[in-house]
Amino acid sequence: MNLPSSHPLVDGRTKNSSLVRAYSGQAPSRRPVWFMRQAGRSLPEYREARVGTAMLEACLDPALASEITLQPVRRHDVDAAIFFSDIVVPLKLAGVDVEIKPGVGPVMGSAVRTADDVARLRELGPLTPDALQPVSDGVALTVDALGETPLIGFAGAPFTLAAYLVEGGPSRDHLAARTLMHADPATWAALTEWAADVAGAFLRAQVLAGASATQLFDSWAGSLSLADYTAHVAPASARALTHVADLDVKKVHFGTGTSELLAAMRDVGADVVGVDYRLPLDEANRRLGGTTPLQGNIDPALLAAPWPVLEAHVRDVVARGSVAPGHVVNLGHGVPPETDPTVLTRVARLVHEI
Amino acid sequence: MNLPSSHPLVDGRTKNSSLVRAYSGQAPSRRPVWFMRQAGRSLPEYREARVGTAMLEACLDPALASEITLQPVRRHDVDAAIFFSDIVVPLKLAGVDVEIKPGVGPVMGSAVRTADDVARLRELGPLTPDALQPVSDGVALTVDALGETPLIGFAGAPFTLAAYLVEGGPSRDHLAARTLMHADPATWAALTEWAADVAGAFLRAQVLAGASATQLFDSWAGSLSLADYTAHVAPASARALTHVADLDVKKVHFGTGTSELLAAMRDVGADVVGVDYRLPLDEANRRLGGTTPLQGNIDPALLAAPWPVLEAHVRDVVARGSVAPGHVVNLGHGVPPETDPTVLTRVARLVHEI
Repeated sequence: MNLPSSHPLVDGRTKNSSLVRAYSGQAPSRRPVWFMRQAGRSLPEYREARVGTAMLEACLDPALASEITLQPVRRHDVDAAIFFSDIVVPLKLAGVDVEIKPGVGPVMGSAVRTADDVARLRELGPLTPDALQPVSDGVALTVDALGETPLIGFAGAPFTLAAYLVEGGPSRDHLAARTLMHADPATWAALTEWAADVAGAFLRAQVLAGASATQLFDSWAGSLSLADYTAHVAPASARALTHVADLDVKKVHFGTGTSELLAAMRDVGADVVGVDYRLPLDEANRRLGGTTPLQGNIDPALLAAPWPVLEAHVRDVVARGSVAPGHVVNLGHGVPPETDPTVLTRVARLVHEI
Repeated sequence: MNLPSSHPLVDGRTKNSSLVRAYSGQAPSRRPVWFMRQAGRSLPEYREARVGTAMLEACLDPALASEITLQPVRRHDVDAAIFFSDIVVPLKLAGVDVEIKPGVGPVMGSAVRTADDVARLRELGPLTPDALQPVSDGVALTVDALGETPLIGFAGAPFTLAAYLVEGGPSRDHLAARTLMHADPATWAALTEWAADVAGAFLRAQVLAGASATQLFDSWAGSLSLADYTAHVAPASARALTHVADLDVKKVHFGTGTSELLAAMRDVGADVVGVDYRLPLDEANRRLGGTTPLQGNIDPALLAAPWPVLEAHVRDVVARGSVAPGHVVNLGHGVPPETDPTVLTRVARLVHEI
């Protein structure tokens, strides 16, 4: 493996952390918990830090991205940081004309629809370590500050990236992307292969700079049938993960609405499967054959419910997750922006006490 | 049963139609097909008819609603019409302050969040036949023109209606609705019970005016776990369907992303289950124990693919659907507005030829 000798896993800083142990199927010293989108709009200190700075600008400012990444760790005593970024950041760094419009999401300068469009995209070439320097710098700063708390590296999966590129922005059913997949499978494969290499390079840079685990987010995989996922998406997701296959880090794979896809998402090379709030963890564990550590799956809707309701739900999630060979408590989707952050702190404390 | 003697099922006009026979598990004379959202923006004659008329105004103009309902039957030779309306129409007729904003969807004057809000809603009283007269008139006009082709009556399911009311408009994960469901189950039950009676009265009016079948759309049920669906949604959906239980019409139940919920959605009292494009019909049939007629499930994304790709897909859907005790071909979600309508005509012809 190519981890530098100062890497937290190599120097042992995070090797025995609760997160890394649970991801490895080993008993952790305390039950690990973190929250998807924990670094973000639910925190007043985040909203303050972001004043006057656009989203992509914030992601590419090493000091700011690092500060934002650290905020929820300080506040909630969670067991991991996840690097503050956006799934389109590697597209931007690869040279794609993309911006993030507040209230809308990522918007592309032009949609990628044809074989020619994909060929032009591929001419941008691979995403180089030089281009990734702001990310590497942000990760290095963060890891220094985190000490024994592991940082999770982050990337959007090729299908989700390709869906943004083909649609030109967010969409409900990703119709144009799913049409291309069937109408021109060769162009689709070329597109997702390119996206896989971009996502993989982004993940690799984060690990080499000090991340102790990785998570691939296929936000929109839930729009696919199992057959389409297996034939047209899984090969690219597997390719993305090969970029970190020689590095000693566990790989988490997560999407929403993916209860039918869990085994297929594991089988692209993931070590840990993230489960959305819709499927009980004991049932997810059964579908995965009882061999795969799980992450999840507190229903974000319950973060706004009275504490006794939320507490009962968290205890239920923990009980169901305990049947898996490893369990990292998380939400079953990202933190809603309007969440009261003191509730998240209280959930983290409860998880540690159970 | 209370069907008037001139009702198409009673006078035999539609009793032996392919649609009604397939919904009843009897062999149809030809394989029936229709398309969810077939009356709508994919048709130039629809766009022309709608010029200068707002959505809710169009739904409540009997002549216009009838004309729009008939357009796809004339054009595509489909085996059923579905009454042109919107799931918020019965809310509007019940006295709720709602409008449909182009490009946004239904927007409520104020969101329904508290027990007091729900109490005020319930004070509006039941949805009366008088209030429903524009709907009854539109249906009667349509049924006269349709002759032997059956009309399907339409309503949004209580969960989807309640989600609009609680969120105040469209939302991605229906967080506020799902929070209320757990935070205050009694208020949630009162809300969905009211919504069930409104949806049920809307369905009943359409059947009494001449519809030969009904379809309940739970557009957003796919955001729920099976446990939440069963505990907090199924009772209200069952209540909605009791409003037509004494009438001799088959009841279809459909939602997207509901592969985990199919049996629960059947068990609220549906005769036919609509299956979205994600789950193969043979697998849906297996999950339903092989006893329930199915409707679905051409992937709308493939309507924009080259014909040979679409044709192979349609043939696959038909082959898989043939294992069920009845199959009405449809899409696995609504017609995308940008669909070339000549493709829909060609699909209908293909289904009839297979």
